[in-house]
Amino acid sequence: MRVLLVGAGGVGTAITRIAARRPFFEAMVVADYDPARAEAAVAALDDARFAAERVDASDEAAVAELLRRHECDVLLNATDPRFVMPLFRAARTAGATYLDMAMSLSHPHGEQPYEKCGVKLGDEQFAQAEEWEKAGALALVGMGVEPGLSDVFARYAADELFDEIEEIGVRDGANLTVDGYDFAPSFSIWTTIEECLNPPVVYESDRGWFTTEPFSEPEVFDFPEGIGPVECVNVEHEEVLLVPRWVKARRVTFKYGLGREFIETLRTLHLLGLDRTDPVTVPSAAGAVAVSPRDVVAACLPDPATLGERMHGKTCAGTWVRGTKDGAPREVYLYHVVDNQWSMAEYGSQAVVWQTAVNPVVALELVATGAWSGSGVLGPEAFPARPFLELLTAYGSPWGMREQ
Amino acid sequence: MRVLLVGAGGVGTAITRIAARRPFFEAMVVADYDPARAEAAVAALDDARFAAERVDASDEAAVAELLRRHECDVLLNATDPRFVMPLFRAARTAGATYLDMAMSLSHPHGEQPYEKCGVKLGDEQFAQAEEWEKAGALALVGMGVEPGLSDVFARYAADELFDEIEEIGVRDGANLTVDGYDFAPSFSIWTTIEECLNPPVVYESDRGWFTTEPFSEPEVFDFPEGIGPVECVNVEHEEVLLVPRWVKARRVTFKYGLGREFIETLRTLHLLGLDRTDPVTVPSAAGAVAVSPRDVVAACLPDPATLGERMHGKTCAGTWVRGTKDGAPREVYLYHVVDNQWSMAEYGSQAVVWQTAVNPVVALELVATGAWSGSGVLGPEAFPARPFLELLTAYGSPWGMREQ
Repeated sequence: MRVLLVGAGGVGTAITRIAARRPFFEAMVVADYDPARAEAAVAALDDARFAAERVDASDEAAVAELLRRHECDVLLNATDPRFVMPLFRAARTAGATYLDMAMSLSHPHGEQPYEKCGVKLGDEQFAQAEEWEKAGALALVGMGVEPGLSDVFARYAADELFDEIEEIGVRDGANLTVDGYDFAPSFSIWTTIEECLNPPVVYESDRGWFTTEPFSEPEVFDFPEGIGPVECVNVEHEEVLLVPRWVKARRVTFKYGLGREFIETLRTLHLLGLDRTDPVTVPSAAGAVAVSPRDVVAACLPDPATLGERMHGKTCAGTWVRGTKDGAPREVYLYHVVDNQWSMAEYGSQAVVWQTAVNPVVALELVATGAWSGSGVLGPEAFPARPFLELLTAYGSPWGMREQ
Repeated sequence: MRVLLVGAGGVGTAITRIAARRPFFEAMVVADYDPARAEAAVAALDDARFAAERVDASDEAAVAELLRRHECDVLLNATDPRFVMPLFRAARTAGATYLDMAMSLSHPHGEQPYEKCGVKLGDEQFAQAEEWEKAGALALVGMGVEPGLSDVFARYAADELFDEIEEIGVRDGANLTVDGYDFAPSFSIWTTIEECLNPPVVYESDRGWFTTEPFSEPEVFDFPEGIGPVECVNVEHEEVLLVPRWVKARRVTFKYGLGREFIETLRTLHLLGLDRTDPVTVPSAAGAVAVSPRDVVAACLPDPATLGERMHGKTCAGTWVRGTKDGAPREVYLYHVVDNQWSMAEYGSQAVVWQTAVNPVVALELVATGAWSGSGVLGPEAFPARPFLELLTAYGSPWGMREQ
């Protein structure tokens, strides 16, 4: 297997560190808009299978050319969701397998944004599913930790733990703190704003997909391994769009453990219009310039990938499932916890970034060995769960299950 | 009297509308960085005494030249506080009387910003007081509503209402709402951030000036004329620096009725570093550019001067004084309320902007008639209060007093 990894930010760099320990691929070309980032990631490894390139992820033709030039059979997308579509199309053009960790972006419903779905997450990708299927080509979408591992958990629950499922609720929470910062998000603020301020999507088997007001249905979820109770709210996330396509459940939700302070901060950004991505005109030393307020918010905060050394605590991704087994009610939480101290010591990557990065590497290895195969645009729950969970454990990062 | 008015924003434009009804001056030249703003203000008046010019307020030499060319004997500064020093120096250079509504900016103490003063508001101006005095020239500083009318109230209380004063506390509150906006400050957000996030300054006769944490000493103050109770907190403001120079009081404070939501919004902006004025680098269509986050916050919000039509409610500026008269304890609140509906109908200016603008026009008229005269760098409380309060009433905008 020859892989083109696009994006050498926090997650992309962690992917190179995790993949470097595995023998399943022959080559991994690391490409970034900023060649210094790609070169730094490769230079840190001392592994002849890795090479650095510069590429503009929005330039579909350049990406396809790069795939061909390096004879890559897989494109792994580790950029932010704005670049999903050009990279997805470039992979198809070049005949490569495609993997990503977030799907094409949504657009709210014009008249009833908090009731009805407009363009849903992944809609643009699924619209091309037939083309991929006909070509016998595979696009494995939403294959990070959430979406990704959370979807694998949903499939595992359906296959092995339940006869009937009432509700599948992805629940994400952490107790991470960062020394020296009163406010330092542990993940890309651009993406966090996008997913938290868009209308959250919910699935119910008799209604289909629908949306609610942001931060709806708050609940306190008790996270395992010492993290404890965190306030979680509905957030727009890919699992709600992916799980019902392959797993039967009456209801599917995603709730993010943002905590009260973070929710209020996001509300304020929205109130002030600072979450906007369309440009506003401001003075600068070079005269009036047009900038995106959301980019300015991101520029004022520290880069989450650089915070590992100052970070303490654990992050938990998981899937809570309620239903029946052998006629009796059952409720479980399948989860994966990463301790920042461990991920920093083992990989030099902070916990949230490492947890996102390990899952696509496991998936690549399953594709390389043939344990996972298929064609079309498929989510992680379209594949058998057990081989994935076993390989994740073999990577040194076990998962857990709590009967509730 | 021939006046150069620098700044044709909300307050500057309201000044032209108020002044146009008064006969005390021969000419008012309205100058702005944006010539269209100056021309619009002049065109609206149909009064041959007014003329429009373009000027860069940071260009001291150009301002002095403009003063000389139009033979102006007064410079009235209606720009934001960043331009105080060049305009103040230009007036001195050209031999003109100088008036402003905010004083030169402060810089926090390097080691103990929330205990000790660094460079205080107005320090740069007072450093040149001797030069003005020697030249027999007058700089009347802090002559808006707050500082300005609030200082006149303090002098009035000392002269006519009290034998001894324990505390003078300026208290500002409003019940303004803006249709169609969840968040729309009624005054320049740039200035509001500056004054609310700088360490608040307090004066005590036995300690001198000192600072506290932002938003300290919250209290609920009951404002008159139907505004009612509003949560007020300590804020850095010129009155605390001006009043003790001319009026004897054991303690001087300024508390701003921001309300809980606005305080939390400002805290969040600070937490995220969005109150910063030093530039951050962000992408733009023209490549990477450096912009001030605070300018971006301002650009995302509506221009307060344009909100008058959608605004409802009243704004109150005033000075609360506690002390003794004829051996008995006394407590009064001297205040000035503007109803937005009235100021829009009468002048087409929103209440907060109009209330700021009327006071320097009254002061100009007192200087023109000789009722107020002096030399040096002087605050409003350096002059007799009664002629000011009588003329303000004659302008159709009476003040009030509440015995507590």
